[in-house]
Amino acid sequence: MGYPELQSAARDIAFVLDKLGVGEALTGLPPFGEFDTATLVQVVDEAARFSREVLAPLNAVGDREGCTWRDGEVRTPAGFADAYRQYRDAGWPSLPCDPSLGGQGLPVVAQVAVQELTAGANLAWTMYPGILHGAYECVHRFGSDALREAWLGPLVSGEWLATMALTEPGAGSDLGQIRTRAEWIDGANDTVKVTGEKIFISGGEQDLTPNIVHLVLARTPDAPAGSGGLSLFLVPKVLANGERNAVRCTGIEHKMGIRGSATCSMAFEGATGYLVGTPCRGLEAMFAMMNSARLHVGASALGLAQNAYEMAVRHAGERVQSRVPGADTGAPIARHPAVWRLLEGQRVAVEGARLLLYRAALAIDEAHHAGTPEARKRADALAALLTPVVKAMLTEQAFEGASAALQVFGGYGYVEETGISQYLRDARIPMIYEGTNEIQAIDLMLRKVVRDGGATLRHWLAWARVQVDDARSVATLGGFNAALAALDEWGSLLPSVIALAQSSPRAALCVAGEVMRAVHGLSMAGLWAQAALAEHRAEAAGGMTGERKRDAARYWLKFELPETRRAMAIVAAQIHDPETAE
Amino acid sequence: MGYPELQSAARDIAFVLDKLGVGEALTGLPPFGEFDTATLVQVVDEAARFSREVLAPLNAVGDREGCTWRDGEVRTPAGFADAYRQYRDAGWPSLPCDPSLGGQGLPVVAQVAVQELTAGANLAWTMYPGILHGAYECVHRFGSDALREAWLGPLVSGEWLATMALTEPGAGSDLGQIRTRAEWIDGANDTVKVTGEKIFISGGEQDLTPNIVHLVLARTPDAPAGSGGLSLFLVPKVLANGERNAVRCTGIEHKMGIRGSATCSMAFEGATGYLVGTPCRGLEAMFAMMNSARLHVGASALGLAQNAYEMAVRHAGERVQSRVPGADTGAPIARHPAVWRLLEGQRVAVEGARLLLYRAALAIDEAHHAGTPEARKRADALAALLTPVVKAMLTEQAFEGASAALQVFGGYGYVEETGISQYLRDARIPMIYEGTNEIQAIDLMLRKVVRDGGATLRHWLAWARVQVDDARSVATLGGFNAALAALDEWGSLLPSVIALAQSSPRAALCVAGEVMRAVHGLSMAGLWAQAALAEHRAEAAGGMTGERKRDAARYWLKFELPETRRAMAIVAAQIHDPETAE
Repeated sequence: MGYPELQSAARDIAFVLDKLGVGEALTGLPPFGEFDTATLVQVVDEAARFSREVLAPLNAVGDREGCTWRDGEVRTPAGFADAYRQYRDAGWPSLPCDPSLGGQGLPVVAQVAVQELTAGANLAWTMYPGILHGAYECVHRFGSDALREAWLGPLVSGEWLATMALTEPGAGSDLGQIRTRAEWIDGANDTVKVTGEKIFISGGEQDLTPNIVHLVLARTPDAPAGSGGLSLFLVPKVLANGERNAVRCTGIEHKMGIRGSATCSMAFEGATGYLVGTPCRGLEAMFAMMNSARLHVGASALGLAQNAYEMAVRHAGERVQSRVPGADTGAPIARHPAVWRLLEGQRVAVEGARLLLYRAALAIDEAHHAGTPEARKRADALAALLTPVVKAMLTEQAFEGASAALQVFGGYGYVEETGISQYLRDARIPMIYEGTNEIQAIDLMLRKVVRDGGATLRHWLAWARVQVDDARSVATLGGFNAALAALDEWGSLLPSVIALAQSSPRAALCVAGEVMRAVHGLSMAGLWAQAALAEHRAEAAGGMTGERKRDAARYWLKFELPETRRAMAIVAAQIHDPETAE
Repeated sequence: MGYPELQSAARDIAFVLDKLGVGEALTGLPPFGEFDTATLVQVVDEAARFSREVLAPLNAVGDREGCTWRDGEVRTPAGFADAYRQYRDAGWPSLPCDPSLGGQGLPVVAQVAVQELTAGANLAWTMYPGILHGAYECVHRFGSDALREAWLGPLVSGEWLATMALTEPGAGSDLGQIRTRAEWIDGANDTVKVTGEKIFISGGEQDLTPNIVHLVLARTPDAPAGSGGLSLFLVPKVLANGERNAVRCTGIEHKMGIRGSATCSMAFEGATGYLVGTPCRGLEAMFAMMNSARLHVGASALGLAQNAYEMAVRHAGERVQSRVPGADTGAPIARHPAVWRLLEGQRVAVEGARLLLYRAALAIDEAHHAGTPEARKRADALAALLTPVVKAMLTEQAFEGASAALQVFGGYGYVEETGISQYLRDARIPMIYEGTNEIQAIDLMLRKVVRDGGATLRHWLAWARVQVDDARSVATLGGFNAALAALDEWGSLLPSVIALAQSSPRAALCVAGEVMRAVHGLSMAGLWAQAALAEHRAEAAGGMTGERKRDAARYWLKFELPETRRAMAIVAAQIHDPETAE
């Protein structure tokens, strides 16, 4: 399969947009009719340039310096605030926003690409604007006219930043335990005083923007217990009249990674807040943006994996050690089979992640803008199905990829100055935040597969099966028979998975992680078939693409498909002899 | 399978010594006739107490403070030197040493247990005495009478510590690139001046002992190029006449983990050194202790995994979050199926690792002391076979286990103060040092499997097959049929693996990692069968052991054996259609 070569993220995103039809599908959606694929590629190239030139140089600085807290104020690492100013001035915050509000109206696909590139260069920095898009969506969609009028403009322009304030010491995965109180102010329609303590709030305090808009989950006095009693409130750091609101940062965490990102404990001490949406339906407003927020986490993880991979390839090409079989002198370690496996495995993971990520992002754009209600509904179901897979599997792959990259460096990888260990440390958190990967697996199984009787999954895998079947018909693309067999086997297994989830939820939940892996692997079978076919056709049409997608597909079929079989075997064993772990 | 319970490392080691016959096998070897299993268990308990009371409290301190370097001197974290004094005064350094030299003459098994327990409590600290046993072995076995006379005593007593000085900037996995020079001093028989630069030397400088004995690989003037031209020299920090030798520490590394361990760059500037063994056969002397050194790395990793697991179990029992299926109120997260999988998976990995580790350690003791040359040779071959498996698989499991433990903590796990992230960071290095895990896989395939035509492996797996077959005959121990099938399938595959390694080494090396996993999994099948049978028999004899080995075996068969099948499927695919990666 040859010597590892480096392919930039931007070039590979362009391949997905151009050769896999994502760009064409997007520009066929009404609001994006004015764009063409070349425009989208231009945006990607520009984001890549900004990430490389402005953000990447601050990555190690941010890790080394971290943030500092004093008397409620937070100082971010040197250069972070200036980088944000450049980001804002270049108009990046408004990218996905409504043109009628001064936004650029670009699709989620483009926003996800920007996230992949910026987070890959500097995840800690990207945490600050990372939530902006979600906060905009939330206020835009659920806020009253008055609220939108007052607060949306500076979020579109990026003049202010935002946070999601959900977690409390006693309420992590279980938001129903939230205790923060919101008391209605007499006379005011939807204004409250918010009192409570929130933890793990990214960017809860910072020195990048003069104001911060907190979206806070809290409980009103008469609200029922549990998550059905939570409402969402907009609580600004600085009120419209210029006064400081009663919210302050009581400390920041000392973390394993993303040290340049301020993870804040926040005290709300009768802070003025404004209702967003309907009382007691705060979770709905919060989760409305969850699909894209979780996709952003997957995109960030992919960005880290790409950059760790690039470092490993460079090192492996330069470091000369022992001879390889058949050679007389020392060779770059990239030529050793064991290192080749580490590198090619990372390439296939990264490029495969991109195939899945942008398919899911496209589904979100289609869910919003497709021409018919049926098409929108179908796309929405697909986006809902793929989102937890993207979040969990891409974050896991990034951590494993960063570890593989570190392994390529050997002892040097363990030394902080080399820089690769930061990728490993930074990559550990996306597996936890925005819903742990275990929560994603439960979400996938119960809400995305079982609830509709497997209909959406079957529909998606039918598409995958067509790709795999097409690929089988091309003689030079070998190895897809095994993928077809796996797809068919899963088809027989699925009704039993659903039946088990209904008869013994505990037993089914014990293998939720394996169901996730099976769905991921079978999705990848279809996506790799599609990519290999696209390359084959481009070549047949006289244009060599040089992306080596067929090599990657062959690698995946040989070395990764057995992982899908492993997961399926465990699911089958659990169906045969259920273990309830009690 | 029930609620996760905590079983201490010492109790589980006692199970292995007592119920799996390791203690009995040891005390049947001539030099250990005076011991009984109870004595060995006492040593283990005492090491556990020392680790818990003295070393564990210094673990976070060491991580926080790290070491500091100034003008060639190294200061270790607060408390490290005092802990070492206690360790030395308690006689731990002399544990495995020859009684005629003042040692206690305990078996490798006991030494490995001490390593597991001390490293689990504090890996950074354990790095300092960690090499002592190897250095003792090396000088004891290869040194001249004069050398032994002069330098061995203080190593036995632990008055001095030692280092292995192999790695150089241009020579990591490839020791043949070593450039450090050793020039004979005219008139002196085996004395040299050593000049060169070594890096990544653990404990190269420290404030624990007044002298440090460096074992240095270097090249004499007329020696051939490559690893066949390397000789081993003993280079003390302080010479016998009390003068300081020309060796100094030029800096220490700033590392991702084991921060309390000083990883030194050393400059040898015409330092006086003494030949150990035969000129140009330095690697032989160095590698003579490699089996036990690599076993020690596996033991350390197991210790880390055990302690990370214990933290996770405790947290999961205390942290209450969402309801579980069938319950009305919030439950400790340990009762959630996804967390149960994380915890039980760790328990099975840790206890399984112990089965393998002590079997390999016993083989080393048998290789030294068994009654007949044939028995010694057989045991030596088995130790050689299992050693790379222990080193690579236990270190990988420890890293994954620490990551799983961190996942149980959720967001809290990512905060340094919680302490779990230190386990993850510390656990990353054993996958690299003492030969990377990729080197272990190559060693296993080429030197331990292919070289003897698979004879040792077949012999070992025949033992495993007997255990599995016995377990099948006990009705209450289900699930072993699949293990038998896997063993038989591997039996058919093995000749092709050997043939591929001979016909296309590159193609074979591409799946060396999977061969490692297959050998590991099939070994574990036999070891789990043995453990389950032992528990079954103890219970039948009226003594409940309560170790839940049968539960663990069932878990392993259901959730882990498919990983072995995955590896075997990749090996089979590579044999069918070899990929040479060129």
